[in-house]
Formats: sequence, structure tokens, C-alpha cells
Amino acid sequence: MPYIKIELTREGVTREQKQRLIKGVTDLMSDTLNKDPHLTHVVIQEIDLDDWGYAGEQVSVLREKGITADKK
Amino acid sequence: MPYIKIELTREGVTREQKQRLIKGVTDLMSDTLNKDPHLTHVVIQEIDLDDWGYAGEQVSVLREKGITADKK
Amino acid sequence: MPYIKIELTREGVTREQKQRLIKGVTDLMSDTLNKDPHLTHVVIQEIDLDDWGYAGEQVSVLREKGITADKK
Amino acid sequence: MPYIKIELTREGVTREQKQRLIKGVTDLMSDTLNKDPHLTHVVIQEIDLDDWGYAGEQVSVLREKGITADKK
Amino acid sequence: MPYIKIELTREGVTREQKQRLIKGVTDLMSDTLNKDPHLTHVVIQEIDLDDWGYAGEQVSVLREKGITADKK
Amino acid sequence: MPYIKIELTREGVTREQKQRLIKGVTDLMSDTLNKDPHLTHVVIQEIDLDDWGYAGEQVSVLREKGITADKK
Repeated sequence: MPYIKIELTREGVTREQKQRLIKGVTDLMSDTLNKDPHLTHVVIQEIDLDDWGYAGEQVSVLREKGITADKK
Repeated sequence: MPYIKIELTREGVTREQKQRLIKGVTDLMSDTLNKDPHLTHVVIQEIDLDDWGYAGEQVSVLREKGITADKK
Repeated sequence: MPYIKIELTREGVTREQKQRLIKGVTDLMSDTLNKDPHLTHVVIQEIDLDDWGYAGEQVSVLREKGITADKK
Repeated sequence: MPYIKIELTREGVTREQKQRLIKGVTDLMSDTLNKDPHLTHVVIQEIDLDDWGYAGEQVSVLREKGITADKK
Repeated sequence: MPYIKIELTREGVTREQKQRLIKGVTDLMSDTLNKDPHLTHVVIQEIDLDDWGYAGEQVSVLREKGITADKK
Repeated sequence: MPYIKIELTREGVTREQKQRLIKGVTDLMSDTLNKDPHLTHVVIQEIDLDDWGYAGEQVSVLREKGITADKK
């Protein structure tokens, strides 16, 4: 009975990317823990950039400064 | 001090249904655990169908296939 | 696809009371929204009294002062 | 590694107030627990008044009756 | 800035399996959304079987009846 | 009606520090948003080091390597 909540900043995640996240997490539960996918629920929640704080700053402010969450 | 979070797919839940959920959950806490309703908070969060995954698929895709969450 | 999280102070909730909460919430989703119980998951999380704050005080301190969450 | 979720009724919280919440919570983690702000994430979630229940009533109904959450 | 919460029934998940879940979810965020792993936090929460309800029953009761969450 | 959840790694947070967190967050809601403290609930959840992942690693592993969350 896994339930997985994914919280992300709202920055243009596509429907197809969401599908890949859902499929990927469900497969991970199945492959690692042998969980029946019919008992795995995944919820994605996008958060506006004004509503996510990191290092004491709104992400909207960080993005204005050119600071991204991209992998280096 | 109960706090209850209800996550649901966004599929036309009415204001009146939400009121019934809130009343029902609060009464359940009061009847089962003798909790003062003034200390019971209930939060309902509707989730877009692209953002809820079940059995590895987006619910939006399941609905397109005619698969519902209705009671049989 | 409802998922419901119930957070409660840890104050002697019995296994039988938990079963009543789970049954009650699942029935409420079924009666109010016609949701299939096989798609309804309920998670109960008990919180230690030092870890729940109300009105700026730990509930453990409130309980020492004789302040309860009981219905009047 | 603190993660903090703030859930609030959606009642005109400004961008500047959100920034104060984010800064305030991050500083609290740093001052009280010596946590590196680069490991502190804060997420604010505003909840519509129909979706928050208190004492068995929707907050939207309480507000119509003139009942606020303001400090006395 | 992803934050992922994984809720699971407490049924003997090993430390090594938890590490695989954490690695797998973090890689998924990196591969799908190009997210820097230093901004990805994953929290696993195991839930006692009395505290997880499915189809209106405690999972502890379902397990006594021989009903598992295993993949068929 | 604010509800605040604080998730922290379980690393010796004292009862007194928890009280400071609860008081600090409640005051912040009152000072910034004029919220009545009797409507503010704060829940602290400590997470075992094996259950928190950062940058793809369990925090327990990071701590063994001498990597802390301390402010520099």
C-alpha cells in the first residue's frame, strides 16, 4: 500500500513528464518492494514559485537572480 | 487535536458535498474519540486528473478509457 | 481515488477505535461521492504530545494544566 | 534537513507576507536547531475557503457569518 | 526543488531497500526533469498495519485473512 | 486557520527546542498574518536518518561520512 506525494515547483512540467514520473515511481515500488501497482497511488502537486522557499528566499526571487534547480 | 486531509481527484465535487465531507469527518472524530469539534480541522485538496497516478497511469488516461472510481 | 490522512494526538486511541475511523471515513467517501472503497486509502498518524502545538504551547503542557480536547 | 509545510486559508496573503513567512521559518530553524538554510525548504499552500472545515463548518460559511481567524 | 514523501505499510522494508527507493526517486527527478539531486529530498514514512485502512478495513486485518499487497 | 507541519531528521531535538519551534511558528503566524493562536496548530515529525534521503543518499550514510546539516 504505497502512497507517494511528489511536490515540485510549477515550472512547465508537461503532461508527458508527469506520466513518466508516475510510471517511474510505480515501477520502483514494484521492482524494489514487489508492490502490486493497483495498490500504488502517486500524487503530483505543483507549487507556485512564490510559495516555495529555499535558503530563506522565495524561489521566484531566486529565479529572477538566475539561480535554477537544474542539474550541473 | 485532529487534523484531517482529504485528497480527491477533481471531478465535479460540489460545495454541498464538501460540506457533507467536513461535517461527516468532524462528527466521526466527535462520536468515536469524543473530540471537541473546535479542535478539529479538515482540509480538502482536489487533484487534477493528470496529477493523480494509479497503477502506473494518469487518472486522466484511465478516464479516457472509461475506467471510473465509481462504486460497483 | 481518495486518500485521507488523519493526524491525532497519541492519547490511547484503541485498535477498535482506529477501525471505526477507517470504516467511517471510507463509508463517507462511498455515501457522499460514490467512491469505490477499493480506491480509498486511509492513513492514521498518532503524534506525541510534545510534538503537537496548539495556541503556541505543546499539548503535553496543556494536558499537565488539565486542558483536554474533550467535547464539552 | 527540515521541510516545512504551511497550510493557510486563501484570504489575500500577499507575496511580501509569504516572503516573511519563509524567512521567519528558515531563521527559526537556523536559530533554534543550527540548521543550514540551504537544507531548509518551506512550502506554502493556500486552501480555498470551501475546502477548509473548522468545527464541522466550511470556513466560507463561517466568514459569511462574520467569524474570522483574526487575533482578538 | 522536489520534495517526495513515500508512505508505506511497515512490513520489513530493509535499509538497503530504502536506499534503493531514495536513489531511484532522486534519479527519476534528475532524468525526467533535470533536477539537481542536491535540491531533491525524499522522506520515507512507514505506517503500522493497524493505521492503514484499505477498502474500509485495517491492513492488519487484511493480512490476517491472507490478503497481501504483493504483485500478482 | 493555519496548520504547519515541520519535518526534521531525528537527531536529538530536545523538548525545549520543540517548544521554541512551536512558539516561534505560532508567533510568526500571529505577527505576519494576524492569526489567532487558538486557530494555529503545529505538528513536528522527526524522521529517522535511514528514512530521509538527500542528493540520492540516506542521511544516515551522509552522517557516517561526516556531512552534517549544521549552519556553516
